Amino acid sequence: MSHGRALVDDPIDRSRFPVDEWQLTETRYDGSDLGVTETLFAVGNGYLGMRGNVEEGRDSYAHGTFINGFHETWRIRHAEEAYGFARVGQTIVNVPDAKVIRIYIDDEPLLLSVADLRHYERRLDFREGVLYRDVEWQSPSGRRVRIRSKRMVSFAERHLAVMTYEVTLLDGDDVPINISCQMLNRQDGQDEYHVRDAAMGEGFDPRRSEALTGRVLVPEDHWHRDGMSALGYRAHSSGMTIGVVSDHTIDTENPYQEFADSDEDLTRHVYRVQARVGVPITVTKAVSYHTSRGVPSRELIDRCLMTLERVREGGADAEFRRQREWLDAFWERSDVVIEDQPELQQAVRWNLFQLAQATARAEGNGIPAKGLTGSGYSGHYFWDSEVYILPFLTYTSPQFARNALRFRYTMLDAARERAVELNQEGALFPWRTINGQEASAYYAAGTAQYHIDADIAHALRQYVNATGDTDFLAREAVDILVETARMWADLGFWRENGDNTFHIHGVTGPDEYTTVVNDNMFTNVMARANLRGALRALKLLKRDYPAEYEQVWRRLRLREEELSEWHRAAERMCIPYDERLGIHPQDAQFLEKELWDLPNTPAEKRPLLLHYHPLVIYRFQVLKQADVVLALFLQGDEFTAEEKLANFDYYDPLTTGDSTLSAVVQSIIASEVGYQELALDYFRSAVFVDLADLHRNASDGVHTASIGGVWNALVCGFGGFRDYVGNFTLDPRLPEVWKGLSFKLTLEGTRVRVDLKHGQVTLTVEEGSSARIDVCGNEVNVTADEPIVMELPDPPRLIGSPEVRDIEGTRRADGTRMTATVPTLIEPPA
Amino acid sequence: MSHGRALVDDPIDRSRFPVDEWQLTETRYDGSDLGVTETLFAVGNGYLGMRGNVEEGRDSYAHGTFINGFHETWRIRHAEEAYGFARVGQTIVNVPDAKVIRIYIDDEPLLLSVADLRHYERRLDFREGVLYRDVEWQSPSGRRVRIRSKRMVSFAERHLAVMTYEVTLLDGDDVPINISCQMLNRQDGQDEYHVRDAAMGEGFDPRRSEALTGRVLVPEDHWHRDGMSALGYRAHSSGMTIGVVSDHTIDTENPYQEFADSDEDLTRHVYRVQARVGVPITVTKAVSYHTSRGVPSRELIDRCLMTLERVREGGADAEFRRQREWLDAFWERSDVVIEDQPELQQAVRWNLFQLAQATARAEGNGIPAKGLTGSGYSGHYFWDSEVYILPFLTYTSPQFARNALRFRYTMLDAARERAVELNQEGALFPWRTINGQEASAYYAAGTAQYHIDADIAHALRQYVNATGDTDFLAREAVDILVETARMWADLGFWRENGDNTFHIHGVTGPDEYTTVVNDNMFTNVMARANLRGALRALKLLKRDYPAEYEQVWRRLRLREEELSEWHRAAERMCIPYDERLGIHPQDAQFLEKELWDLPNTPAEKRPLLLHYHPLVIYRFQVLKQADVVLALFLQGDEFTAEEKLANFDYYDPLTTGDSTLSAVVQSIIASEVGYQELALDYFRSAVFVDLADLHRNASDGVHTASIGGVWNALVCGFGGFRDYVGNFTLDPRLPEVWKGLSFKLTLEGTRVRVDLKHGQVTLTVEEGSSARIDVCGNEVNVTADEPIVMELPDPPRLIGSPEVRDIEGTRRADGTRMTATVPTLIEPPA
Repeated sequence: MSHGRALVDDPIDRSRFPVDEWQLTETRYDGSDLGVTETLFAVGNGYLGMRGNVEEGRDSYAHGTFINGFHETWRIRHAEEAYGFARVGQTIVNVPDAKVIRIYIDDEPLLLSVADLRHYERRLDFREGVLYRDVEWQSPSGRRVRIRSKRMVSFAERHLAVMTYEVTLLDGDDVPINISCQMLNRQDGQDEYHVRDAAMGEGFDPRRSEALTGRVLVPEDHWHRDGMSALGYRAHSSGMTIGVVSDHTIDTENPYQEFADSDEDLTRHVYRVQARVGVPITVTKAVSYHTSRGVPSRELIDRCLMTLERVREGGADAEFRRQREWLDAFWERSDVVIEDQPELQQAVRWNLFQLAQATARAEGNGIPAKGLTGSGYSGHYFWDSEVYILPFLTYTSPQFARNALRFRYTMLDAARERAVELNQEGALFPWRTINGQEASAYYAAGTAQYHIDADIAHALRQYVNATGDTDFLAREAVDILVETARMWADLGFWRENGDNTFHIHGVTGPDEYTTVVNDNMFTNVMARANLRGALRALKLLKRDYPAEYEQVWRRLRLREEELSEWHRAAERMCIPYDERLGIHPQDAQFLEKELWDLPNTPAEKRPLLLHYHPLVIYRFQVLKQADVVLALFLQGDEFTAEEKLANFDYYDPLTTGDSTLSAVVQSIIASEVGYQELALDYFRSAVFVDLADLHRNASDGVHTASIGGVWNALVCGFGGFRDYVGNFTLDPRLPEVWKGLSFKLTLEGTRVRVDLKHGQVTLTVEEGSSARIDVCGNEVNVTADEPIVMELPDPPRLIGSPEVRDIEGTRRADGTRMTATVPTLIEPPA
Repeated sequence: MSHGRALVDDPIDRSRFPVDEWQLTETRYDGSDLGVTETLFAVGNGYLGMRGNVEEGRDSYAHGTFINGFHETWRIRHAEEAYGFARVGQTIVNVPDAKVIRIYIDDEPLLLSVADLRHYERRLDFREGVLYRDVEWQSPSGRRVRIRSKRMVSFAERHLAVMTYEVTLLDGDDVPINISCQMLNRQDGQDEYHVRDAAMGEGFDPRRSEALTGRVLVPEDHWHRDGMSALGYRAHSSGMTIGVVSDHTIDTENPYQEFADSDEDLTRHVYRVQARVGVPITVTKAVSYHTSRGVPSRELIDRCLMTLERVREGGADAEFRRQREWLDAFWERSDVVIEDQPELQQAVRWNLFQLAQATARAEGNGIPAKGLTGSGYSGHYFWDSEVYILPFLTYTSPQFARNALRFRYTMLDAARERAVELNQEGALFPWRTINGQEASAYYAAGTAQYHIDADIAHALRQYVNATGDTDFLAREAVDILVETARMWADLGFWRENGDNTFHIHGVTGPDEYTTVVNDNMFTNVMARANLRGALRALKLLKRDYPAEYEQVWRRLRLREEELSEWHRAAERMCIPYDERLGIHPQDAQFLEKELWDLPNTPAEKRPLLLHYHPLVIYRFQVLKQADVVLALFLQGDEFTAEEKLANFDYYDPLTTGDSTLSAVVQSIIASEVGYQELALDYFRSAVFVDLADLHRNASDGVHTASIGGVWNALVCGFGGFRDYVGNFTLDPRLPEVWKGLSFKLTLEGTRVRVDLKHGQVTLTVEEGSSARIDVCGNEVNVTADEPIVMELPDPPRLIGSPEVRDIEGTRRADGTRMTATVPTLIEPPA
């Protein structure tokens, strides 16, 4: 943690963003960090996302409206080609922007950056699911108006967004007010979004999105009639189609006229109002988006009309009510309460709300690394979803988890093809993708991360264990387990070192500061679990689903020898271990490397990846995130408490945390081994990662995986919850400075509320019948009849944090070096 | 060798290319392999190169005219960027084509591919240095003409090419014959060259050249007057300038008229002749090219005029005579004779002639991987020059070697800057470059090949030892040794394993089928020699050049501690060694890898790099070329005969030879350890690599390094010559099937001819005073007074070749695997 970013007690300017447990409020307009606030105030539902751009459509860092999975493809040009390099680039498209509602008073537009604002407030309400803005503007002609607007993307209606814009003249004579509701194709227009992309040439940042060139959205349809405007497009190369329709209504006692026009890239619906003092004008804009892999956009526009007609019938208010109801249910099953910590509570709820926004209606799609709040990482799906986000879904909204896993199932054929390209049997899932094809153009930190296969298998097993949804396993998901197990058995090989062990060479673990190594401990541990999981699944099918078992056997052409090979490989998997240090080397050669002098690396050289050539970074013991520590979390039952402590002590000081995936995992294991303050520090640097823009790139979108990790840190770190092979255990680590912590877990259909206090836990069934949980070694069966209260032992307590030891071999700041480093002893598993 | 390409006894169609020891003759026009013959019949002098395109300018695979170092730059776009990745792409430009002389009989053009040819012969004469063509054509109107042409690029005049075109009507009435001498800017024109480049998108081959887009040569000047035509350009991005002027004369008794015109991309000088039977028409075209980094092209055109005016005065014939004289001297000091082996003799001479063509007048430039015979590898300079080509130059034309090394010296500042970018002290030479900047876009097989520093230092030491040119060392070259030594001392680090050893991690050796490894044996051996060489050079300066020594000390800010660190690092350098196998692992982890099943890899999957993802290849013990074997050659005095045999036996069966750099080195060590037939097989697959197009890419240009290796295989392999730290030794390995072998060595200014017979060697001083040579352990001093004849012991003799052993751990063809492989024991040096 000595290397992490310093985090002051409250990293947020509370004069601008006051504490409120249920909403994020901004009380002062500030044009200097628009990129960040556009991200923080984004609204979305997992299918459709809208950045928090101002209604009036100017003053932006990046206008952004995204549909999950709606992407353009392009040919990846490698500066130097090689066989099997990723070929099809995939970039999420900035779909037509329907957020825009421009206002003109006396023909003067409202432009927040220069406007004379007598009042300004913007707030994202986590229970309402609505972004509110309330502005009082004194126009250049001296007229005061109040503008109140609302924006929501509906959780209940997947394809719907609703906005209202209410204007009231506050003083003086009548004045003409024009309100222009627009839809713009920004992807192919001239706007700030593209200016930034073009500028990327110089100050590069590989974590951003690739720029598309040439026209992306090919116009197919546009019209305006009956208060509605429509645009239809086909993406030039991917062939995906989109229809978007907006429906406009006005409610006012003022006289007004109505005009509309449309062209290929713009629709306008304009109200010209002669406004009188105190007589409000309310414009409502309901927007529907439908997309497809290829259905004609005309048909998609028809689907939009169906959605919008339902809204017309019920009225916009009904949609805002449904939104609240949906979120009430969400919080009912997902809320986490930290007693008496309002700043943290607000941050936690903002984080959980982001998880809903990123996943709820993703359905046939994956979960992009930035949700739908920005185009960072090109809207791609990574391992992040399975490892960091799915636990939250699995234990609070299992249906969403199932959708995400089914999405991977639909990509299985593409993964089989990729395996063939990589000369492997089975299936190899792409490191980053939208359409199922590998899109990672840097294989060393991309395709080489074979562990994604095991991560998906892990999330799948976790889902089945937590839900008991063995039907899904038997009918579909078993194919994923079998094909990934096959990949591992084929990728690795046997070696006789006196003892016969199974090795996996030439792979990259999650820590991207070391690539293409042998026997990466994380990979091998996860591959072992993958192999075992496949065998267990087949055993379960054989017992409970004999018909499906037969089908699987035939469909996948299973052979008995394969199964015994998986068993042997799992049991004899090489897990690197160093006797002298009592730790697990990150890979077979990790401990042979020179140590990076992290305490003496200046702040302006961080993150390392932006200041050192990969060859330099790879040569040292220095971590972006700690592989081994993650393995200790995901497969914790495979390691002793002593091993966990020794590993954490070794790796924590080497960890830069340059990845936002790092802090949450460090927090969890710090909690487990007893570094309570450190766990809290890590937790804070995770929960505020976007809210305080700690990694200085929140403008590109929220860090969805880190946010998922925040839930893990709360429930698994401080809450001490684990689920190894379906055994639910609790061994809490409530921080001393917290009074209590409450969270919910849905286990095999029963929702249990866990209320932690110091020395005591209360388990209450909120929904369902009963659940079996092991609390610190005592298995209890909690039922709907009554809560169970249990005493808790004191958790382990270590003071401070692991020291950066003056380890032999470190290059000192003055350039001299110590002349020794530790030897490596790789021991096969006992 | 079992894995090499099968080579039939004589791989060349002798009905088309008859055996002739002093020329390469083609007796039949064949349009099906134009790419190859354009390469084989290319002419050049190391500054200017012209592919063997037909005079008439049509029917080509790739029109190509190249000036060494004349390049365009472009921004390298990485599909995924990272810090320190190469930024400036550099591509050799196809300069204006002055080869074209079109002929029209009765307005019908001669087009070889469809022409009715009654006679055809083309021959490249290695002593004349001239490409001759002799054609008898029956035109569509039935008229027979004889056309004899000559083309040469002058060795004596660096900037000059001379062509003649002689036409004689053989029968019938007078007929109009038009002869049009042209110069064309093909780089920016529509021609076959670009068609092929554009097609690269699909069937990629990373060994080819990158395509440039947009106009490259920006016109600055063009004119025609006084029988001359001129073109001047500036390269768009690099800013390099070029002027080219052609001077035309006609000699005929026929009446004729003369016309000329020119535009930005084309000049024409046309002779309209009323030809009579038997009255020859001879057109002579003298062309001069001058280039610069930025001098205005007008000034360069003036320089061309100076060159051409000299030619006008002396006449073209004088230039052809000077060419012969130059080559007589070249062969006098460079020829290698294999007695009674005319096919091989022809091939050897063609190879040696290519070395002259690639290097003679390179002067301020490096030696491109394809010489000036094609645009393959973009005209870049690699380590090839230092390791494969410089020995030939050093021991036969030391001035050329000096030029090549001075070229590296001029790039030292760029190498210092690159070192800073890679976070290293000293200098790091680019893996591939024209202008001194790193141009390798794939760092794993590019920038990671740090060994290029040691290779340059090696060639430099070799040159100084062989020539005694310590002046060059003292005044300039010592800087290279110091800065490269610094790089190694900084790159590596110390580790205490009971024994204190120096390690170099995260580098790639010459074998590009394994990348970014620890303690690559080749790299460490060469780095050790680099460190020692720097120390030796400083010691020599201190003794013999005290003033220069003082200057060096100040100029490079040397510190005593540095020198002692170099000494320690060299003496304690980790050289991986495996006790059980008695071999040197290619790198610290090499023996831990799975073995590639090479005997069962089908031919259509070769070369591997075009059929397997790098991650797949890197995971196995399989070689593109054998690093360790190369180290055994370059630093042979560091290894015992037993070690050499054991290493060769181990690595030879793992070596694909997918690199043309492989066969020559395998041949040399096969000779040394006693595999005589194998050495000959390897030699044949090297000496015919282009002549028989064994790697199927001779169309992109000759394999200059392999060609340099041919000389090494003859002189060091069969001849048994070595030069370790200035001790010249001979331990010949004359193949049983050869009667004798003769070659020349220029040692410290004395040229010695070595005549080998079975059991006997004769040493004769051809020029200079005397030389000291150790012959099989007996040091002799051969003087100009009389030759020395010595008896030779029988060389070692092993039958067959190393077997592909059924080594434990091999994946069998049927997919099953053996379950064991060898353990690795890395021992520090004793």
